Amino acid sequence: MQGNYKALWLNDDLFDECLEVIDQRLLPFIYDTRHLTTTEEVVTAIKNMTVRGAGVIGSVAAFGIYIAAMEVEGDYELLKEKALLIRESRPTAINLMWAVDKMMELLSASANLIEDARSFAIELNDAEALESQKIAEFGCEIIEEILKQKNKTRINILTHCNAGWLAVIDEGTALAPIYEAKRRGIDVHVWVDETRPRNQGASLTAWELSKEGIEHTIIADNMGGLLMQRGEVDMVIVGADRVSANGDVANKIGTYLKALAAHDNGVPFYVAIPASTFDFEIKDGVKEIPIEERSGDEVKFIRGVDEDGVLRRVRITPEDSPTKNYGFDVTPARLISALITNKGVCRANFDEIKEKFRG
Amino acid sequence: MQGNYKALWLNDDLFDECLEVIDQRLLPFIYDTRHLTTTEEVVTAIKNMTVRGAGVIGSVAAFGIYIAAMEVEGDYELLKEKALLIRESRPTAINLMWAVDKMMELLSASANLIEDARSFAIELNDAEALESQKIAEFGCEIIEEILKQKNKTRINILTHCNAGWLAVIDEGTALAPIYEAKRRGIDVHVWVDETRPRNQGASLTAWELSKEGIEHTIIADNMGGLLMQRGEVDMVIVGADRVSANGDVANKIGTYLKALAAHDNGVPFYVAIPASTFDFEIKDGVKEIPIEERSGDEVKFIRGVDEDGVLRRVRITPEDSPTKNYGFDVTPARLISALITNKGVCRANFDEIKEKFRG
Repeated sequence: MQGNYKALWLNDDLFDECLEVIDQRLLPFIYDTRHLTTTEEVVTAIKNMTVRGAGVIGSVAAFGIYIAAMEVEGDYELLKEKALLIRESRPTAINLMWAVDKMMELLSASANLIEDARSFAIELNDAEALESQKIAEFGCEIIEEILKQKNKTRINILTHCNAGWLAVIDEGTALAPIYEAKRRGIDVHVWVDETRPRNQGASLTAWELSKEGIEHTIIADNMGGLLMQRGEVDMVIVGADRVSANGDVANKIGTYLKALAAHDNGVPFYVAIPASTFDFEIKDGVKEIPIEERSGDEVKFIRGVDEDGVLRRVRITPEDSPTKNYGFDVTPARLISALITNKGVCRANFDEIKEKFRG
Repeated sequence: MQGNYKALWLNDDLFDECLEVIDQRLLPFIYDTRHLTTTEEVVTAIKNMTVRGAGVIGSVAAFGIYIAAMEVEGDYELLKEKALLIRESRPTAINLMWAVDKMMELLSASANLIEDARSFAIELNDAEALESQKIAEFGCEIIEEILKQKNKTRINILTHCNAGWLAVIDEGTALAPIYEAKRRGIDVHVWVDETRPRNQGASLTAWELSKEGIEHTIIADNMGGLLMQRGEVDMVIVGADRVSANGDVANKIGTYLKALAAHDNGVPFYVAIPASTFDFEIKDGVKEIPIEERSGDEVKFIRGVDEDGVLRRVRITPEDSPTKNYGFDVTPARLISALITNKGVCRANFDEIKEKFRG
């Protein structure tokens, strides 16, 4: 890959090399990119969600260390200060902290700080892209198996939120098996949950699938249950923000409801993750994983384009009605058919996770 | 009530008496009413959803016959033509057809068509308001029972869509027990599902509850599962469009997902209906109740007010991505704690429904 990914890439058109990223805040209405040339610009891009998605934030942070290294002209002590700024740009992003810490550790004995920062950032990101590719392959084998069992040639997959290459380079997690299926010539159709309140499905996933030429249909989050009752969903694949030692899955709010519907209708429900998503400190995900509460304004206001193509933010609730907005829910392991990881497929239970991932 | 209800009322300020209705298309942004003075205006108001909600459509239709009777100056043959126009203003509204047919049957032997049309319309509507009041009382007894069992003084009720007095005069169905609880001094808080894609929860239910001074919080439809996992929901009450002989419930899309979550978390799930909602022709609701497919534009576009208070319609999806939009789903009887009807509380199963309602 050599520093060139779908959601972000090194760009040496300017005086110094910089990181160019897709501005995800404007999708699907406007495609635009930003050049990140300083630590401050990296921090701002993470803070204001120009870039989002656990994996991509980590990717930007790794390249951010390279940009910071150029900025401090290779001084490790000064770089540590810059690294701290990047590390603290979003409070709960595990991958962000991991990427910054890993980069600083790798660079601690470096004699060529700038050059090494560039190489290490590329190395970390190429490794992540490889993980994504492995998830694609293992996941696609499941797709092929389902088609074989059902004696069908077309598969309908439902997904929630965005776990594509806008979130994790360079194929995503949940969408990775879908991209692989397309490459293998499988007739695939994706039901895209719009994913209220931030609408990552309707805006990011739909945009990504359009760009990749994959047939898809956007639905209100309320519709998945009916579709499963009617046999119009062959499998569900979602990503995850955190998976506990017992296989419970924290993911975007609403995931749990789809898992319940899948279970009630015998639809297989898969969670696609890199192995780094496991949090072995947490024994019981449903009870212990902390749930981020976000601003109620995300429920009150929504963005879209009017008939003149002007991007507008409108209020969709009564002015005085309070709103509440939790970002995630936790799907109990018992509702999950299996985890699709870069190291293979794994049942969502304590013993199998321990055996395969804790050595 | 004498022709005076919360969502619609007779108004004799003008030359002839007319029906005044709340324009539900503009809520919660603008409160405005319309005067329906001709059959054409009645038909248009039903067609363009100035009035909506199964019950309220029927109510408007009944008064529509009175307005039509004035228009044709008491000629029954001419009235039949007008009645047909009203009857066909929305294709699948059972209450609409029932109300028109009932009015015409009552009027078939009338000597004072205009006067009788007025009386019969009031009679039918007062009877419906009484049913709503009975649902309120039976439902509130359940609320009191739950509080007693849990030894609590505050109840958290989750509801989906709008089944308040904007939908059924004069207390609604699902919201009726909540209004009764408030009257009895119970500390009640309502979780309001925004109810995508048409957002009847965020716009109509929240507005109604605000107006009635009932504490409530609007949430994305995705959030109910998490709230139930965390014990923040004591019961769910929804309305229904149709209930089959075996107790399966067709209601606004997404109801089924909430019923699954309630069942998974031991939260009681109630469906509040007038007895007229039963469709005994349908033995197996999940298999047989037809599901209306609506325009995908309801998923693509949304209305709200911008920062200057201007009402705008914006597109929230990529231009090229298809959308799909079913209006209802069917919740299997096994997930329903009980039906709250105007004739009392009834388990959602074939035998008990038969015994209580077909006897």
